[in-house]
Amino acid sequence: MCPLRLSPTDLERLDAYWRAANYLTVGQIYLQDNPLLREPLRAEHVKPRLLGHWGTSPGLSLIYAHLNRLIVKQADLDVLFLAGPGHGGPAIVANTYLEGTYSEVYPRIGRDVAGMRALFRQFSTPGGIPSHVGPATPGSIHEGGELGYVLSHAFGAVFDQPNLLAVAVVGDGEAETSPLEGSWKGISFLDPAHDGAVLPILHANGYKIAGPTVLGRATNEDVRSLFGGHGYDVHIVSGADPTYVHNALAETLEICLGKIRQIQRSARAQATSQVRPRWPMIVLRTPKGWTGPHEVDGVPIEGTFRSHQVPLSEVRTNPEHLAVLEAWLRSYRPEELFDDGGRLRPEIAAMAPKGGRRMSANVHANGGPRNDLDLPDYRGYALDVPRPGVIKHESTRQLGAMLRDTYRMNPVSFRLFCPDETASNRLGAVFETERRCLVAPTLDADERVSPHGRVMEVLSEHNCQGWLEGYVLTGRHGLFATYEAFALIVASMATQHAKWLEACLDLPWRAPVPS
Amino acid sequence: MCPLRLSPTDLERLDAYWRAANYLTVGQIYLQDNPLLREPLRAEHVKPRLLGHWGTSPGLSLIYAHLNRLIVKQADLDVLFLAGPGHGGPAIVANTYLEGTYSEVYPRIGRDVAGMRALFRQFSTPGGIPSHVGPATPGSIHEGGELGYVLSHAFGAVFDQPNLLAVAVVGDGEAETSPLEGSWKGISFLDPAHDGAVLPILHANGYKIAGPTVLGRATNEDVRSLFGGHGYDVHIVSGADPTYVHNALAETLEICLGKIRQIQRSARAQATSQVRPRWPMIVLRTPKGWTGPHEVDGVPIEGTFRSHQVPLSEVRTNPEHLAVLEAWLRSYRPEELFDDGGRLRPEIAAMAPKGGRRMSANVHANGGPRNDLDLPDYRGYALDVPRPGVIKHESTRQLGAMLRDTYRMNPVSFRLFCPDETASNRLGAVFETERRCLVAPTLDADERVSPHGRVMEVLSEHNCQGWLEGYVLTGRHGLFATYEAFALIVASMATQHAKWLEACLDLPWRAPVPS
Ligand SMILES: Cc1ncc(C[n+]2csc(CCOP(=O)(O)OP(=O)(O)O)c2C)c(N)n1
Ligand SMILES: Cc1ncc(C[n+]2csc(CCOP(=O)(O)OP(=O)(O)O)c2C)c(N)n1
Repeated sequence: MCPLRLSPTDLERLDAYWRAANYLTVGQIYLQDNPLLREPLRAEHVKPRLLGHWGTSPGLSLIYAHLNRLIVKQADLDVLFLAGPGHGGPAIVANTYLEGTYSEVYPRIGRDVAGMRALFRQFSTPGGIPSHVGPATPGSIHEGGELGYVLSHAFGAVFDQPNLLAVAVVGDGEAETSPLEGSWKGISFLDPAHDGAVLPILHANGYKIAGPTVLGRATNEDVRSLFGGHGYDVHIVSGADPTYVHNALAETLEICLGKIRQIQRSARAQATSQVRPRWPMIVLRTPKGWTGPHEVDGVPIEGTFRSHQVPLSEVRTNPEHLAVLEAWLRSYRPEELFDDGGRLRPEIAAMAPKGGRRMSANVHANGGPRNDLDLPDYRGYALDVPRPGVIKHESTRQLGAMLRDTYRMNPVSFRLFCPDETASNRLGAVFETERRCLVAPTLDADERVSPHGRVMEVLSEHNCQGWLEGYVLTGRHGLFATYEAFALIVASMATQHAKWLEACLDLPWRAPVPS
Repeated sequence: MCPLRLSPTDLERLDAYWRAANYLTVGQIYLQDNPLLREPLRAEHVKPRLLGHWGTSPGLSLIYAHLNRLIVKQADLDVLFLAGPGHGGPAIVANTYLEGTYSEVYPRIGRDVAGMRALFRQFSTPGGIPSHVGPATPGSIHEGGELGYVLSHAFGAVFDQPNLLAVAVVGDGEAETSPLEGSWKGISFLDPAHDGAVLPILHANGYKIAGPTVLGRATNEDVRSLFGGHGYDVHIVSGADPTYVHNALAETLEICLGKIRQIQRSARAQATSQVRPRWPMIVLRTPKGWTGPHEVDGVPIEGTFRSHQVPLSEVRTNPEHLAVLEAWLRSYRPEELFDDGGRLRPEIAAMAPKGGRRMSANVHANGGPRNDLDLPDYRGYALDVPRPGVIKHESTRQLGAMLRDTYRMNPVSFRLFCPDETASNRLGAVFETERRCLVAPTLDADERVSPHGRVMEVLSEHNCQGWLEGYVLTGRHGLFATYEAFALIVASMATQHAKWLEACLDLPWRAPVPS
């Protein structure tokens, strides 16, 4: 299935880019000095307190580097990147730094030795940056703390955004959470004609924090069957040999992009189809903590749960560990990656896209192109009440009429999300103008159901909330209507979202988003 | 696949039992008088305010009646019934009434005309009973309000209960919720040697409240693939002809029970297997609101979302609707089902099991056989602190030691549930005596993982909480340990559980359960 496809130069540069990201990741976790390793590593170069998550990072960076290549090759590709295992914060920060976005947003972290040193020192230290992906990370709309929402955020981001491709990396541990398991069905609510696409990449590195994962241990056959049953066209890339995986992943990404374009082309050409397309997805099976120390003190690390956080401890006091760390860092051959000034060598830097095509600078991740909400005058929906107590009416019916007109006035930037209660909440007037979304054959008995519908009635409060968040964080407007009794179901999600918005207030470069 | 298997008498009695349950269900929703319909139906026999959910009810009663038959046939079968679509409360109440349990628990609702009239009048009226399954429903451990937890409750109930079979009916709407989607994986944590079995029945009647469901519209092929990928052996029973469905369902249930016993026998005979057995499950595709009015005012009802709640409205004022209701009720031929005194005819009553084998009287649904928790003396875990401030220690390490000993002292009635954070919460001492549960091949790199493990580390707060609730409501003891930051994820579940426990305080027949 995998002919060697990359030219030797491409392969070498892609691998160099990946090594650079890995180097910067390990540097953030361990180093406070000697960032380029131009002198031998000494204990005092190492941070006194070691924090961060290594295990997921090499996989995230691998995907990131490959997406870069794809974007450069397909000049017009508009990609939003969402890291489910957002505890791999240092990997994402490393990539935004390699692309230059990080230094543009935070000029004190320059693209030179001093900047790299500052990059390393700020990570997970008081006054520095958190260890997880968050609002401070350029290009992100997805907080990396509470696991489970990455796919619903991705779907929300691409609704009414026909040219956007959201790539969502899902951890195999994260895939055990109920909100995540409930979000694969997003493709049943994704209109290939008018929405963008989501490419899920299940990063099955086999372990969560301390134990194996259900999907990590599942056979390829079961995995294919499971996601096939969800409606996906499943591509498995599996290996521990970088050359093989580079080739296989590069090829698979191109195939997937081709299929996405094919799906969109045919949906946009023909009038309407009620068959849900088989959207591609990728299952990437690579070792947890790949390229990290293979064994420490006789205990296996690479490819096991022990690489989840900081695989090497007591580095300042244990000379053997210090030597392992130095060998690990040098295995990336930093001298081939960065010049003496600490700048990424130009031929490697050329692997990344430019300007707004960089995933870290994608406009949709920062409030999107400006979309104001046009609202009808609410006074128009007041009831005519001649005398108190003479008419009996449900107030939400009037709200329904107002929402109907809001749909009309904002035909591609407003949506209602509701766990199948729109009519029973008496908001049914929206169906005078919009339909319920379901990409499936409709029957005569159905009422206002269509693959092009934009009233999002999935019986999942988690999907409603996650879609809404993704929709709103990319600059559009929405409302989540639910029975009061069930609002608590998404209390935790809503709290995370509020924290995100709050943190954005302190980041001047973040555009305001609707809330 | 479906030879007619039931003898004509069996078929007729099974169908009569189902008709009786349906009759009592419609009666609860509509009637306040004339319960046996021995006189023509008049407007004043009908309740002034019509409430309740008809759509799901005939399916629930069909399954209930068939399980009765299975229990009677297999004298020793210990079955706990869990109704996911617990808004079908009148159906479950009808069945517990047919079995006699209801009148034993609530003597004012006798098995005679007056009792039946009282049964109808109490439903969904102030001072009466709620419309959903709840603590007041005999045989239930599962609240029928907030959808999504039925499967996790079922798995929790059968852990360490090797002879128990929990049958969990899952609505296809409910199956869209994230907690439900996340709970199919329970079989990866179910030890066939020492735990009981769960038989999920996906009741795919096609619709939720107002729209079609994702699984309702999925092809059989996709459904097989999906649940096959989750690890199940999928049996589909689909039809709208009662005779056909009775035969197919009866046969399928017997096949499934046979497979469950086969799995358990072989797991209990051999030393240990790391292969997850293919547990059977059933997908039941029957019309929503089956046997209800086919059409009202020219609009189709049976088999559509319009049967979800009360399919016929304005019955007191619209004589045509009154006639439809009467015809509907008479279609069950109540005179063949109940004698003049209102008693179920003996040959039909004989279809139900007796005593504690009735699902409505199952001991596990009411706190289970008594299991006290043996706790070690907590003083034994105090640290020896000679002077304040001289030793540094994490308090949870001591708790871990105490939990380890609690495991030892309660080898089949205590479990820890944790989203993969036991070690990182410093409770790792439990692994001195217990292992992490995963029914999958283990690798050398794993630490304390086994298909027989009883530390429940699934990365799903929803499963942890649901399993714990199921375990505790059936009389055992457990602890859910999670990072404080993520406790809010299950705020809603925990609130529902607390409400359940609170309601039980007012029910003298409910045995106390651990909390
Ligand atoms: C909802 C939730 N529960 C628990 C945690 C704690 N936690 C952090 S990382 C992790 C393991 C994640 O595993 P996986 O998604 O496979 O990521 P990777 O292996 O790539 O690090 C857990 C359980 C969390 N972040 N969120
Ligand atoms: C978490 C949650 N969200 C929303 C509701 C409101 N609700 C009650 S019944 C129902 C539809 C259920 O459909 P399904 O599970 O298929 O049951 P059935 O069709 O058999 O009635 C909904 C959305 C609920 N009870 N719980």
